[in-house]
Amino acid sequence: MDNIIASLDPVSIAVGVGIGAVLAVTLMPKSSGQINNSILKNEAKVATVCPLKDIEDTVNTSDKGVVAYCRCWRSSTFPLCDGSHVKHNKATGDNTGPLVIKK
Amino acid sequence: MDNIIASLDPVSIAVGVGIGAVLAVTLMPKSSGQINNSILKNEAKVATVCPLKDIEDTVNTSDKGVVAYCRCWRSSTFPLCDGSHVKHNKATGDNTGPLVIKK
Repeated sequence: MDNIIASLDPVSIAVGVGIGAVLAVTLMPKSSGQINNSILKNEAKVATVCPLKDIEDTVNTSDKGVVAYCRCWRSSTFPLCDGSHVKHNKATGDNTGPLVIKK
Repeated sequence: MDNIIASLDPVSIAVGVGIGAVLAVTLMPKSSGQINNSILKNEAKVATVCPLKDIEDTVNTSDKGVVAYCRCWRSSTFPLCDGSHVKHNKATGDNTGPLVIKK
């Protein structure tokens, strides 16, 4: 083993380190920094407009007297919250939570 | 130049490529995958609870008859929207937008 190491050429190793680093940086997947990975991605902007009347009806008729709106962009019932923030927070150490409107 | 290249040792270069790649992957900053980078990070979960009455008052007294809640976690007036999603979307190609409650 010693002779193999001894036979290595430092200049060649240095050239290799440069090549390896450039390859790794180029090939490594980069985070887009996006928050919304999947909801209505064909739309330029996903702004949800809710009439106050609808919210009043929902809150006043729901068992718990609340309605929760998703802010983690992972809910399968978006714009409403389905608890997906729990899984997202656990996986990433984040601390997102919904907007809760209550009676 | 040709002799320099000719003098390089392929095995040493290969060893260097390995070292370079490992170094790059280790040292490159990785995205946490978090959505909320700065808002109330000392709290385990940032759920905003709004009484319906407050929302009704806000909507009914605002000039435009609307109130917008932030969903991009960049607003300086969080939980209210301050338009920061525009800058975020532009920088990342995302398509986030607020929850808008209107009269």
